[in-house]
Amino acid sequence: MLEPIRIGVLGLGTVGGGVANVLLRNAEEIARRAGRGIEVIQASVRDVHKDRSCDTSQMQLTEQPMQIVNNPDVDIVVELIGGTSRARELVLKAIQNGKHVVTANKALIALHGNEIFDAAQQNGVMVAFEAAVAGGIPIIKAIREGLTGNSIDWLCGIINGTTNFILTEMRDKGRDFADVLAEAQALGYAEADPTFDIEGIDAAHKLTILAAIAFGVPLNFDAVYTEGITKIEGKDVSYAEQFGYRIKHLGFARRSDHGVELRVHPTMVPEGRLLANVDGVMNAVLVHGDAVGPTLYYGAGAGADPTASAVVADLVDVVRSMTADPENRVPHLAFQADSIATQMPMLKIFEVETAYYLRLRAEDKAGVLADISAILGAANISIEAMTQKEPAEGETSVDLILITQAVQEIHLDDALRQIEALPEISNNVVKIRIESLN
Amino acid sequence: MLEPIRIGVLGLGTVGGGVANVLLRNAEEIARRAGRGIEVIQASVRDVHKDRSCDTSQMQLTEQPMQIVNNPDVDIVVELIGGTSRARELVLKAIQNGKHVVTANKALIALHGNEIFDAAQQNGVMVAFEAAVAGGIPIIKAIREGLTGNSIDWLCGIINGTTNFILTEMRDKGRDFADVLAEAQALGYAEADPTFDIEGIDAAHKLTILAAIAFGVPLNFDAVYTEGITKIEGKDVSYAEQFGYRIKHLGFARRSDHGVELRVHPTMVPEGRLLANVDGVMNAVLVHGDAVGPTLYYGAGAGADPTASAVVADLVDVVRSMTADPENRVPHLAFQADSIATQMPMLKIFEVETAYYLRLRAEDKAGVLADISAILGAANISIEAMTQKEPAEGETSVDLILITQAVQEIHLDDALRQIEALPEISNNVVKIRIESLN
Repeated sequence: MLEPIRIGVLGLGTVGGGVANVLLRNAEEIARRAGRGIEVIQASVRDVHKDRSCDTSQMQLTEQPMQIVNNPDVDIVVELIGGTSRARELVLKAIQNGKHVVTANKALIALHGNEIFDAAQQNGVMVAFEAAVAGGIPIIKAIREGLTGNSIDWLCGIINGTTNFILTEMRDKGRDFADVLAEAQALGYAEADPTFDIEGIDAAHKLTILAAIAFGVPLNFDAVYTEGITKIEGKDVSYAEQFGYRIKHLGFARRSDHGVELRVHPTMVPEGRLLANVDGVMNAVLVHGDAVGPTLYYGAGAGADPTASAVVADLVDVVRSMTADPENRVPHLAFQADSIATQMPMLKIFEVETAYYLRLRAEDKAGVLADISAILGAANISIEAMTQKEPAEGETSVDLILITQAVQEIHLDDALRQIEALPEISNNVVKIRIESLN
Repeated sequence: MLEPIRIGVLGLGTVGGGVANVLLRNAEEIARRAGRGIEVIQASVRDVHKDRSCDTSQMQLTEQPMQIVNNPDVDIVVELIGGTSRARELVLKAIQNGKHVVTANKALIALHGNEIFDAAQQNGVMVAFEAAVAGGIPIIKAIREGLTGNSIDWLCGIINGTTNFILTEMRDKGRDFADVLAEAQALGYAEADPTFDIEGIDAAHKLTILAAIAFGVPLNFDAVYTEGITKIEGKDVSYAEQFGYRIKHLGFARRSDHGVELRVHPTMVPEGRLLANVDGVMNAVLVHGDAVGPTLYYGAGAGADPTASAVVADLVDVVRSMTADPENRVPHLAFQADSIATQMPMLKIFEVETAYYLRLRAEDKAGVLADISAILGAANISIEAMTQKEPAEGETSVDLILITQAVQEIHLDDALRQIEALPEISNNVVKIRIESLN
């Protein structure tokens, strides 16, 4: 058997420790697959004296990640420090030094991937990033290599475990957002500063990557419309259920003749769909190809071992392809670098067409419904279903729920402005997009 | 761009026509991914004068498949004629001629794969077979390349659309097996001779392949315990539901310290599991790795376009790897040829341990339950739940349903023989295995 491949790991925290553990625990099986061993010879940490979650007896620890990037004995650099500034610098330097890179850093790829892949191409090295999207689910591989015969029409996914955990708890136990968020933080499912998760930024990073490899467009994070789950109330979860829907925080990417739409937002999904039944911290991605139809990929989206599973799969891929002609490797973004459609229009959210759930707070008196119906009718917006709740004891206003048929968002928003101006309407209308996932 | 790769297709029926159509329809997108075009230049058919489901103007048709295998202009042979005798001969000849092969033929791979991959290895060519299991779902790629960091504990799947369609209809509409089978035949979901599907042989072929690439063992079709769905009655579907289960026809492979168990049979699965909610002709495979935990892959398991999706993905893979060092390609069976565990014991069905659903027909009189309980108790078989149905008008015997805890099958069968010998028991006990899929 060939000499083992020598790995340098930048960042030996939760995921880095998981990678080291999996490589040791499954060393024999991994070598039987890859044809040679894969060994961590060096790792960077913030404090070399701190206790570790993995055996570090066979590796050299350093507090200087640049030492690893410049270490001539290191064949592949695994970047797990996160963030985009220092990580970008280290990854680009590793590439310049002719090293292959494996990263789990979704923000880095979403924001700087075009530059990084360009540099990798010029230096004849590979940058693999399976762990950047949906943790242990091999979704990058599935889209990039498993569906190459398809023109991919659309994809959508539950790609942030924290928001899915929160929405699942809100539905299952009728709890409030803030309450569940606090528990998620205590359980380690949510960060102390949960903004990236609950405002949808993390999901937008991942959607950026999925859309690029599905449609053959450049990474374009700025084109993603991003909306979090902080405005979802318990009553919306419960009303959704009454109409046969569940609220999921989805990343959604679709390609049409007009261009590509990229959006992350709470979405009502029919309760019978598999995606509606993906609960807790689990992730799932639904990909629709013109030949294969719908396919779905489900698994753990985070955690030390599941993320390590993806990192190690990338390492084996890189080991298998290292000696191949660089021109003949799987392209980083699924499409050959000179075949990426840089001119494809990116649609704004107001150009998107979906159905909507609307919740209004209206005075409980005659004529209100007629006014609302008149405004929607004038805008050519069809109502699929409508229900008026009973006023609570002592209250004179009621919740009014409307489900619309598909309409372009700009027209809906126009109508909503008129509705909100009605004297009988006391709230900003709550609007949740609906996708049938057909 | 490089010259197009030239494909010869053996068999231009449903799937072959689908492959030709997908290659034409998505020609531009496929070339943007693969870096070169992929064109069918020759195809074999039984009758060159018959109408085709695809455009044949750019290909030469022949009634002699061996002409394609021997055609020096053909780079890759796609085998879609099915069966194992002629297909084996053609594939081996193509390999000897130095051609890469893509096949959708599960029986061929399950029965002759060891020989075929050996020949391919010796001749430095690839044999790709993604379409052989679960149609358009890239499950071979996911296990072989996406989960390489894992020690895979077990996998199970709905890998035959015909049986899943029949069981779904039986549950949804309370219909009988024979009735639904006739409809499935009319709809084209089942063959005129449905034996391969309904007796589980087709699923056993696929399970053979999945187990080999998951565990690194040789293809061993003879080791699969195979049981079809012909004995499932409507009342079992309905009783299962009352206990919170659904009956699915699953292929199940597990590796333990004792060896590998491979079995295809009707299985009761908790109704909340995603796999329990995969309905109609759809397929899904659940794979459990030690690092990643559970992952699930869902999609269309058959049909012209979904199968073509997998065949074309294989073609793109082969095109990308053609110039690579043959020693460094992805191994056919996921593990390096010299690392396959040829000595791993294969367990017999009587060595397997599962929980069971049992349906007995007993005389409605005192003492029967005590007799049954005594027999099970003496065999150390614990009862999880039990229910006795009311006798129908004018009948003196009743259905008795038992759910056992996990027990080795040999001990259960011993006890069942004693139970069946009781004078109050009038049927052969109906036995359905239960898997919690945890």
